[in-house]
Amino acid sequence: MSGKLIVFEGVEGCGKTTQMQLCCQWLESLGISVIVTREPGGTELGIHLRRLLLEKSEDKPVADVTELLLYAADRAQHVEQELKPNLAAGKYILCDRYIDSTVAYQGYGRGLNMSLIEKLNDIATSGLTSDLTIWLDVDVEVGFSRKRGDAAGLDRIEQETIAFHRRVQQGYSQLAAAHPSRIVRVDGSLSKETVSSLIQEILRQRLQV
Amino acid sequence: MSGKLIVFEGVEGCGKTTQMQLCCQWLESLGISVIVTREPGGTELGIHLRRLLLEKSEDKPVADVTELLLYAADRAQHVEQELKPNLAAGKYILCDRYIDSTVAYQGYGRGLNMSLIEKLNDIATSGLTSDLTIWLDVDVEVGFSRKRGDAAGLDRIEQETIAFHRRVQQGYSQLAAAHPSRIVRVDGSLSKETVSSLIQEILRQRLQV
Repeated sequence: MSGKLIVFEGVEGCGKTTQMQLCCQWLESLGISVIVTREPGGTELGIHLRRLLLEKSEDKPVADVTELLLYAADRAQHVEQELKPNLAAGKYILCDRYIDSTVAYQGYGRGLNMSLIEKLNDIATSGLTSDLTIWLDVDVEVGFSRKRGDAAGLDRIEQETIAFHRRVQQGYSQLAAAHPSRIVRVDGSLSKETVSSLIQEILRQRLQV
Repeated sequence: MSGKLIVFEGVEGCGKTTQMQLCCQWLESLGISVIVTREPGGTELGIHLRRLLLEKSEDKPVADVTELLLYAADRAQHVEQELKPNLAAGKYILCDRYIDSTVAYQGYGRGLNMSLIEKLNDIATSGLTSDLTIWLDVDVEVGFSRKRGDAAGLDRIEQETIAFHRRVQQGYSQLAAAHPSRIVRVDGSLSKETVSSLIQEILRQRLQV
């Protein structure tokens, strides 16, 4: 595989969408072929699953273990249908969320069984890890105020309490400490131009772009 | 738990639907409270997943591991939302397919990784096994001719080759041999009245109905 899988992670409002766009433009300006994708919802099947996962639940809520299995199904399809073929074709893939989101949100955030999460991540990815994961670290309050500024409505995940998102943040912090060669923290509270320059520098150093 | 989980298994056209109806009527005539359900599609969420699983695939097929994860998600939701609460309430549950279908169809039929299937069955059921599984054993050809007689159209699974269904049949045979205390074979080629009487006799003996 000559392509690269670059994942963007962080709490709501951390600036992933903006930074992925800027990173994509920069890579393309260097003549690199780029794919921008996301989880959940990076495949046709995944769009259906994303809707099931993020829509407001009715009277019958989705059980915790069901939720984990649906995220895993979305991921498995994404890995097989999008990530592996595009990496094999030498593409640079910018992916909005991957395995660390499940650990941070479902594991640290909701307190679901961590060994089950890791087992399902292994099954879903069949071992495919990112070449680089950019963690955009912003205070939960900053992220929320950014979202509130532009949001017509917050979805089910976004409506979770601030306390939940603080646990997610803590999860990212622990993941970054545990995987320093794969995950790089970037201060997401800086200006978007500064963050974008920092990300370019990291890609140059880590991936020899 | 004072209820009982009774699962009906077998290849297409084996007579599950008819026999579940007859069994339900008989149990109700004895004053027993019965729930009739199925996998996949035994919950509101499961209906969406069943559609994703059984509808004809477009140009982007569902990956094998995705398929297993979706069946597991359907099962996990069914176990949490339907099976456990109804068993706790003392109901008799008649369920059209459960874990043995995944072993028979995905494991023996498609040749997918058996240890992965067993791992996902464990995750999805959190250990809930049936009190009794009735395997309606008919020749694949007999089952197919029954289906052909009444079918407006066969779904994706039903369209698989006869050879595939022979492997499924073989799977059921091996499962029944491996779990004699849980799985009981019934000759599904007999008349529906005879099969129904045999099932009543098995329930009397095994579950003291």
